[in-house]
Amino acid sequence: MILTVTPNPALDCTWRVERLVPGESHRVPAGAQRAGGKGINVARVLTGAGLDAFALTTAGGDSGEVLAAELRAAGIPHRLIPVAAATRRSIAAVDDATGEATLLNEVGGALADEESTALFAAARTLATGAEVTVISGSLPPGIDAGSVGALVADIAASGVTTIADVTGPALLAAADAGAHVVKPNASELRETTGSTGAVAGARMLRDRGAGLVVVSLGADGMLFVGGADPNAVLRARLPRPLRGNATGAGDAAVAAIAATLAGRPNAADDLSPAELVELARAAVAWSASAVLMPLAGELSPELAQLATDVIFDTDIRDLT
Amino acid sequence: MILTVTPNPALDCTWRVERLVPGESHRVPAGAQRAGGKGINVARVLTGAGLDAFALTTAGGDSGEVLAAELRAAGIPHRLIPVAAATRRSIAAVDDATGEATLLNEVGGALADEESTALFAAARTLATGAEVTVISGSLPPGIDAGSVGALVADIAASGVTTIADVTGPALLAAADAGAHVVKPNASELRETTGSTGAVAGARMLRDRGAGLVVVSLGADGMLFVGGADPNAVLRARLPRPLRGNATGAGDAAVAAIAATLAGRPNAADDLSPAELVELARAAVAWSASAVLMPLAGELSPELAQLATDVIFDTDIRDLT
Repeated sequence: MILTVTPNPALDCTWRVERLVPGESHRVPAGAQRAGGKGINVARVLTGAGLDAFALTTAGGDSGEVLAAELRAAGIPHRLIPVAAATRRSIAAVDDATGEATLLNEVGGALADEESTALFAAARTLATGAEVTVISGSLPPGIDAGSVGALVADIAASGVTTIADVTGPALLAAADAGAHVVKPNASELRETTGSTGAVAGARMLRDRGAGLVVVSLGADGMLFVGGADPNAVLRARLPRPLRGNATGAGDAAVAAIAATLAGRPNAADDLSPAELVELARAAVAWSASAVLMPLAGELSPELAQLATDVIFDTDIRDLT
Repeated sequence: MILTVTPNPALDCTWRVERLVPGESHRVPAGAQRAGGKGINVARVLTGAGLDAFALTTAGGDSGEVLAAELRAAGIPHRLIPVAAATRRSIAAVDDATGEATLLNEVGGALADEESTALFAAARTLATGAEVTVISGSLPPGIDAGSVGALVADIAASGVTTIADVTGPALLAAADAGAHVVKPNASELRETTGSTGAVAGARMLRDRGAGLVVVSLGADGMLFVGGADPNAVLRARLPRPLRGNATGAGDAAVAAIAATLAGRPNAADDLSPAELVELARAAVAWSASAVLMPLAGELSPELAQLATDVIFDTDIRDLT
C-alpha cells in the first residue's frame, strides 16, 4: 500500500467561464467540487491506475463534508482526521477557450495541537502497513517544519520508503531527516537552497541526507540527482513541450515515483543507473499524461506512448 | 406575516480579494456562504427589522444543505421544497479596495414537474395565512411565466396583497393577473415593455392590471406610478447618490413596500397620495440603507436619518 499524507487539503471548486472580466457578471454552468491537495491528488492518480493507495488528511466544516463525500464517491480509500476549522477552498475560474485558470486559494484555519498530534499519530500508525509513504503539500498554520522532519525520520527509520513533496523549511527538514526522495520544483528549490543552479541546489539537498532529489523543470522535464551513485545526474523530458493543464502534473510524477519504488528491494538511494532511468521515464510520462487531462489527479490514455517518447541527458553542467 | 416566494434561490458565496487579475493565483481569507435569491433577501431584511416574515423556496444537493443551515442559523422562518438539482451557487469575488464585485452565476438545474407543483401548492397554502405575499427573482428552467401569473391571480383573488419582483414574460403575466405591486428596474422595464420612457413603460403595466408600478432607477431613486389615482406619478430619491454595494438594494425596497402594506386596509391600488409618499419614503430609505451594508439583506443604522432626507418630485414628463 502507498500511504499519502496531506496536512493541508483543499476542496477544489472549478467553474468554466467564457471570458473572465473583473467587475462583470458571468453566467456559468454548475461548477465541480473535488477533494484536492497534493497528497490527495497522488492517491487519486494511484487509485485510478489500479494501485493500492490510501489517503490520510483532515476534514472540517461544510467543505470538509463535501470533501469526504467526494473521496467516497471516487473510491479513494482514506482516513480523515476531524478538525474544527473548515477545510479551505480553492476556487478556480477556468477560461473555456485558453484553459487559463484564475485562482482564489483560501488560506485555511490553524490546526489545534491535539488535531496535528492526531494527524501525525495516524500517519505513523498507517505507515507501518505501507511500502511507501508520501507527504505532500503545504502545511497549515499549527504544523511546523520540525514535526514533518520528525515524521520523515521515524517512518524512514522503520524501513518504509519515504517521499516528501514539501517546500521551504519543511523541505530542508525532510532532507535532513533522510527522506528517500524529495521533489521540489525549480523555483521552490531555488528559494529554499538559495542556489541558482538546479543541479547544485539538488546536490545540497542530497548532501543534507535526501537519497534522491527530483526537480520538476516544467516544460524542460525533470532532473534526478542521486541514487546508488551519489554523483549521478539525469535529466528526462519529452522531445516537445505539451499544451494543457499543469495543475497536478507534479503530483502525477510523485505517484509514478511511489509506484516505481513500491515493493522493490532497493530504496531510492540504492537505485542502479538503469533503475533510475526507468523511474525517471515513469515520472516524466505520468506527469505529461496528467497535463493532457482537464482535472488534477487523472492520467490520459496516451501514457504508454508518452513513456516510449521520453529522452534522457546525462551530460549536464547545470540548469538555471 | 409576510410570505416571500423565491423560485430560483442561490447559495451566495463571497470572497474578498485584494485585486483580481485573470490568470493569477490569489491568497484570500475564508469566504462566506449565505442563502440568497431575491425573496430570501427580502425575508432577511424583514426578519432583521423585527417583522414577521416567512421564506418559501427550494433546496437541493450539498449547496441546498448549506443554504438550509444558514437560514436556520440566521433565524429566518422558512420552508424548503426538496428538489433533485443542486441549488445553484453565485460566486462573488469582491475587490477589497473598490468594492467592485466579479460574479459567476450558475445557471441552475431545471425543476421537475412535481417539484414546481409542490412549490406552487405550498405558496398557495402559506399565502392564506399571509397579509402580503412577495414573489421575487428569476425562474428556474421548468417554471413558466404563466404559472407565476396564475399564482398571482389566485393569491390576489383571496384578498392577500401581492407583490411581484419578476422580469420579462413573468412581469407581464403578473401585471395581467392584477398584482398589487410590480417592481422592475429601469432596464428590465425597458426590455419587457419596449418603452424607452420609464413613466410610459410603468403606465403600460398599470394599464394591463398592476395596481402600483415601482421602478428602481439606481442612483436616480425610484419611480411610483399608480395608487388610488391611476395617473399619479411620483419620484422619490436622496439628494446625493450613495457609494456602496447595490446588490440587494432592490430587495430592501421590496421589503419596505411589503412592510408598509402589511396590515393596512388599503391595498397598493387604493393608496391615497399621502400614503403613497410614505410608502415611497420607506422604499427609498430602506434601499439606500442596504447600499451602505456590505452584504445583501441588511440595513444600516442610518435608516431613520435617510428616511428624513428623501425628496420627492411629482412634476415628471418622463425619465429615459
